Amino acid sequence: MTASFDSMWADLEPVGRDPRGGYRRFAWTDADATLREWFAAEAARRGLTAVADRAGNQWAWWGEPSAAAKGVVAGSHLDSVPNGGAFDGPLGVVSAFAAVDLLRSRGHVPSRPIGVVNFGDEEGARFGIACAGSRLLTGALTVDRALALTDADGVSLAQALGRQGLREPAADPEALDRVGTFVELHVEQGRALALGPLCNEHHDAPVRIGAHCKGDGDTASAPVGVATEIWPHGRWRVTLAGEANHAGTTPLDDRRDPMLGLADLVTSARAAAAAHGVLATVGKIEVDPNGVNAIPSEVRAWLDCRGADPDAVAAVLADLGRFAPRQESWTAATVFDPALAARLSGLLGGAPLLPTGAGHDAGILSAAGVPTAMLFVRNPTGVSHSPAEFAERADCHAGVEALADVLAELTR
Amino acid sequence: MTASFDSMWADLEPVGRDPRGGYRRFAWTDADATLREWFAAEAARRGLTAVADRAGNQWAWWGEPSAAAKGVVAGSHLDSVPNGGAFDGPLGVVSAFAAVDLLRSRGHVPSRPIGVVNFGDEEGARFGIACAGSRLLTGALTVDRALALTDADGVSLAQALGRQGLREPAADPEALDRVGTFVELHVEQGRALALGPLCNEHHDAPVRIGAHCKGDGDTASAPVGVATEIWPHGRWRVTLAGEANHAGTTPLDDRRDPMLGLADLVTSARAAAAAHGVLATVGKIEVDPNGVNAIPSEVRAWLDCRGADPDAVAAVLADLGRFAPRQESWTAATVFDPALAARLSGLLGGAPLLPTGAGHDAGILSAAGVPTAMLFVRNPTGVSHSPAEFAERADCHAGVEALADVLAELTR
Repeated sequence: MTASFDSMWADLEPVGRDPRGGYRRFAWTDADATLREWFAAEAARRGLTAVADRAGNQWAWWGEPSAAAKGVVAGSHLDSVPNGGAFDGPLGVVSAFAAVDLLRSRGHVPSRPIGVVNFGDEEGARFGIACAGSRLLTGALTVDRALALTDADGVSLAQALGRQGLREPAADPEALDRVGTFVELHVEQGRALALGPLCNEHHDAPVRIGAHCKGDGDTASAPVGVATEIWPHGRWRVTLAGEANHAGTTPLDDRRDPMLGLADLVTSARAAAAAHGVLATVGKIEVDPNGVNAIPSEVRAWLDCRGADPDAVAAVLADLGRFAPRQESWTAATVFDPALAARLSGLLGGAPLLPTGAGHDAGILSAAGVPTAMLFVRNPTGVSHSPAEFAERADCHAGVEALADVLAELTR
Repeated sequence: MTASFDSMWADLEPVGRDPRGGYRRFAWTDADATLREWFAAEAARRGLTAVADRAGNQWAWWGEPSAAAKGVVAGSHLDSVPNGGAFDGPLGVVSAFAAVDLLRSRGHVPSRPIGVVNFGDEEGARFGIACAGSRLLTGALTVDRALALTDADGVSLAQALGRQGLREPAADPEALDRVGTFVELHVEQGRALALGPLCNEHHDAPVRIGAHCKGDGDTASAPVGVATEIWPHGRWRVTLAGEANHAGTTPLDDRRDPMLGLADLVTSARAAAAAHGVLATVGKIEVDPNGVNAIPSEVRAWLDCRGADPDAVAAVLADLGRFAPRQESWTAATVFDPALAARLSGLLGGAPLLPTGAGHDAGILSAAGVPTAMLFVRNPTGVSHSPAEFAERADCHAGVEALADVLAELTR
């Protein structure tokens, strides 16, 4: 299994490198096509049946799933954010194939089909909608809205799929109905596993990011954990209006400079997040006309805000009310099947249970009624969405073992 | 003359419109080619001799200038900033042609040649160097540096000139040596003429932007003024380093978010400018990776700073020292020929004398030793580098009259 994992990891390593660092594996690009060919080849190598659903997601089946004989599916996504890391997404897909190899080497005969999935456009880096593939599959993203999406070059989602030989996107309830249980393995985006112990081992409240327990429990960190929930999260857009004018001739008192409003927004968002115990980030900015000697006519900023408590997120937005933030998306908390999470934690020798602030395809499937679980692999720095994203190879191998154990348990 | 001005103005009105507002007339583009064809046609219509120099600037001569019989030249530029206005540049070129028409209608016989000029790439919007055409002409921009310049699409300055049928750029001392005096008419970028009175009518110190005199002098505003100097001005680049990470999972205390540094820079620059009585602007920003759910790895910001007193500009930069600003350009004060300015002010019935914070081709020629003057036309709002840039038509006509009077005086 370690050889199988290591070989697949090495094959993916050069695909979609960004010369400025990390990876740029946007959905439905040439890099993505290479990754999809890789997926199909790995399926063929194992005698798995590769199929694409109408939403553009790839599936590789060991056995023949149906609505009557639903499968147990593992996987994640292969696309990346701009300058993303190697682990976010690919770790889950590679680990799923490696877990199949491990189960076969153990002589496991599954009682129901096992599938490996590669969800399309999970990061939303190209069309702006995160988890576009799984949302289309379940109908959470409507076809009408999907058809209106365009990338930065004006290419529509339908055109992008067409260039990959795929039809106009559509929900695919039949494909969804073949999934009995979904397990997504993912690199942890945070340091809860690395820091240990986890607050939810010692407190009633879920672990709060930035407030790791300093209690007297077990302080050992753990290579693999089980997710309890995805925090509620949303995106808001703030438009700061100014008056374009010459930077060299306009008196300070005559200016309407929206860059000053941006500075106020950034500092106010940080202060509000700290006050209410949640996370708030201004990560994306557009400036018009963005000239060195021009007072901007307009600055647009995007605010990402999330936390365990949706009321605390609402309080941050209320604090920022003077900026008239316009909501672009909101995803309520996703609580993964508690019985399944507890069963997997026990199966894995008491693996830590932890929440996350990041959205995942697992959240979309869970919201669509599919019993869903997530496994996290330890991340020593907590860094993700960055070239510095990392997991020790031994921890990756432990993740494959854990995933194989889970698939074996669910197909016993 | 008014008909001639109005007709030319109407011809230029549709060229290079930006669908988002104003004009996008970048140097050596299709829009610029249309403007250059217009210039050549206006020269031909008047029987003027049109020539391009080796730096890509266009000249139209009434008479035959030489190093022995230098000409008096009026003009400006036809290119624009992104989403620029109609007046910055074209007003000076159109007024120069209209002034020639007016002189001829008066029966004026010039004692030495009169020229009209269109300097290339004054705004620097495409290749990043303001006044590229006049700087190349005088040698202030070296050929080696010019050849290394590329636009946002990777097109070099030499390629851009080649596509317009022009040779590799070069200094052109012969062309420069034909210019005995240069007069640039320009829309005022500020409200000194509109607000009146000007502080330099009542004080020893030059007028300070933002500190217009409230004295008891003549409060009438004036349609045309004469420039005394261009303030010293510079550009600095600030690189704010961060650590890329996931916006939804990284505790506030674990973040290195360069957007907070940007907010600090913007507010600090404004405070320092106010404290030292100069102008400072952060108008251009680049964010990596600029994703909604990504803490940026790096933010780059450009600072524009200028004022009457170079020591005050230096004091602002000292206040911002913790941001390690790196100087990209610095232009010392340009003081226009004081005797010429006084003579023109007197000729124009005591036209106000005023400094400006904006750079111009006139400053480049003045620094190269050419006796140079500038006329400003009243701008009721002071707005420039914007679709809202404006001058009343009657003031434009007054500008043509003033320019014709100046050319007549200098070629008597």
